[in-house]
Amino acid sequence: MYYIGVDLGGTNIAAGIVTEKGEIIRKKSIPTLRQRHYKEILKDMGNLCLTLIEEENISIKEIHSIGVGSPGTFDPEEGVLIYANNLGFKNVPIRSEIQKYINLPVYLENDANCAALGEATSGAAKEYKNSITVTLGTGIGGGIVIDGKIFSGSFYGGGEIGHNVIVVDGEPCTCGRKGCWEVYGSATALIREAKIAAIKHPESQIYSLVNGDLNKINAKIPFDAAQNGDEIAQEVVNRYIKYVAEGITSMVNILQPEVVVIGGGVCAQGDYLLNPIKKFVKENAYGLKPSKVEVRIAELGNDAGIIGAAMLGKMEK
Amino acid sequence: MYYIGVDLGGTNIAAGIVTEKGEIIRKKSIPTLRQRHYKEILKDMGNLCLTLIEEENISIKEIHSIGVGSPGTFDPEEGVLIYANNLGFKNVPIRSEIQKYINLPVYLENDANCAALGEATSGAAKEYKNSITVTLGTGIGGGIVIDGKIFSGSFYGGGEIGHNVIVVDGEPCTCGRKGCWEVYGSATALIREAKIAAIKHPESQIYSLVNGDLNKINAKIPFDAAQNGDEIAQEVVNRYIKYVAEGITSMVNILQPEVVVIGGGVCAQGDYLLNPIKKFVKENAYGLKPSKVEVRIAELGNDAGIIGAAMLGKMEK
Repeated sequence: MYYIGVDLGGTNIAAGIVTEKGEIIRKKSIPTLRQRHYKEILKDMGNLCLTLIEEENISIKEIHSIGVGSPGTFDPEEGVLIYANNLGFKNVPIRSEIQKYINLPVYLENDANCAALGEATSGAAKEYKNSITVTLGTGIGGGIVIDGKIFSGSFYGGGEIGHNVIVVDGEPCTCGRKGCWEVYGSATALIREAKIAAIKHPESQIYSLVNGDLNKINAKIPFDAAQNGDEIAQEVVNRYIKYVAEGITSMVNILQPEVVVIGGGVCAQGDYLLNPIKKFVKENAYGLKPSKVEVRIAELGNDAGIIGAAMLGKMEK
Repeated sequence: MYYIGVDLGGTNIAAGIVTEKGEIIRKKSIPTLRQRHYKEILKDMGNLCLTLIEEENISIKEIHSIGVGSPGTFDPEEGVLIYANNLGFKNVPIRSEIQKYINLPVYLENDANCAALGEATSGAAKEYKNSITVTLGTGIGGGIVIDGKIFSGSFYGGGEIGHNVIVVDGEPCTCGRKGCWEVYGSATALIREAKIAAIKHPESQIYSLVNGDLNKINAKIPFDAAQNGDEIAQEVVNRYIKYVAEGITSMVNILQPEVVVIGGGVCAQGDYLLNPIKKFVKENAYGLKPSKVEVRIAELGNDAGIIGAAMLGKMEK
């Protein structure tokens, strides 16, 4: 049996055929063109699934289900995407639209939860039953996997670990509260702090690496400068890593997974990011030291979303 | 079938016979006398269970199991209490000791988890599958119930919600980190802040209610003074409630239970404590407002520990 996973993003729709073991055997991507009516977009999505099946030369009967991952708020039971800001979707009946083109069970989930399930099935958490995947991107996304299944709370909205306040009355967050973890630990936060440092310290490599064009500062720049020995950048990066580590350690205390997986753009920094976080968690997590909880870098990149979406059907079995 | 639950504390051992529905039909308490060797204490515990059975005039065959709740770190599989500071216990084989006197299955759990299971079975969370019980006491204890079962993480040490850092680099915590929720939201924290306020403001009722004897300030005093209209006390209490509410809201974002139950000594303050917390959670939890997550005051008091311990056996069925 095979599973189709679809990662519906604001720019592209990526889909893949996935095996029982969680391996992608064929994938394809098309532009979302999100200005269109949702019916057009979902028609393309249905046809993309049909194309994959045809190209792989398998029968639709060999496909168990289609899983769709996307940012936003869902009603997975009804198969409806309630609200997704970046797609401009409101109350979109994804399941019934796709089923106009391809008559298979359709499952929906938040993209961060799909990424977590993908890493749990085939990636950095594959030996473990309980894991948390933390995505350091525009915000901090999170997916909690317990006993091999996504845990999304009582009203499909749990796992919002980026909105754990780590500084009461701290910097404002887009969610309306102040001091959320994602205000300090996201890639956006790192870039903001790097820009401030570059303005204050034009002698820093953060400034020179972008030739003074602060808009070119991305999450890689402060890490590059820090690894080159730039002290200002090291301060920015060390502070950033501390915030990430504090938040991860708190998640370990609350949920005690076997492993925390770090994904998102920032995870490209590898050991320079990972090693101090591992050390912090081992030494600071509650209870007997060193903590048994592992911390790892995500392994699947963008494929995690496709694989996790596909595995929604397997999880439901 | 009946279940026996034992709440093993530093001062008393309380035990009860509990029905399938989670109701105590008979209970009894004896002093722990914790200076004794653990074998003496556990012999008393075994005999206490036998006494209850005899007094209730039922057969041991009608008892499914014995559950024991206690502060500390456990290996529930081996039936061993690894470490409990307030009992002076280290690697105590509770299961095998009790079974010397009464041959029944014995289950162990952390006391905060037992209280949460008790409230979930028969108390404030009894209509719900997913709940968190927050105990505001010397520290902040927590128990997470998912699908009617205690979730204690991968190594029996999860649910330490009091050790979620809410102020990075804040006040030191006994766990070794800084800024943990329990440093701001426990009864101990409230008493500390009330004492500071009384020293700074001897004109406050916090001072006069204890006739200037600051050692007499307990968690009730600042609440009493606040309800009498004392502005200094209102400031202390409002700040305290905000810290509690921030931590609860973060737990809601991470775990999205159906209900958060507030227990521990402070919960005696009832609506004066509860109402502002409910309002804060409704308005600030992530996602669609108002949040659907309920907040309630615990209903079972000390019985929660007995009932929850008893229900460990039912949970394992």
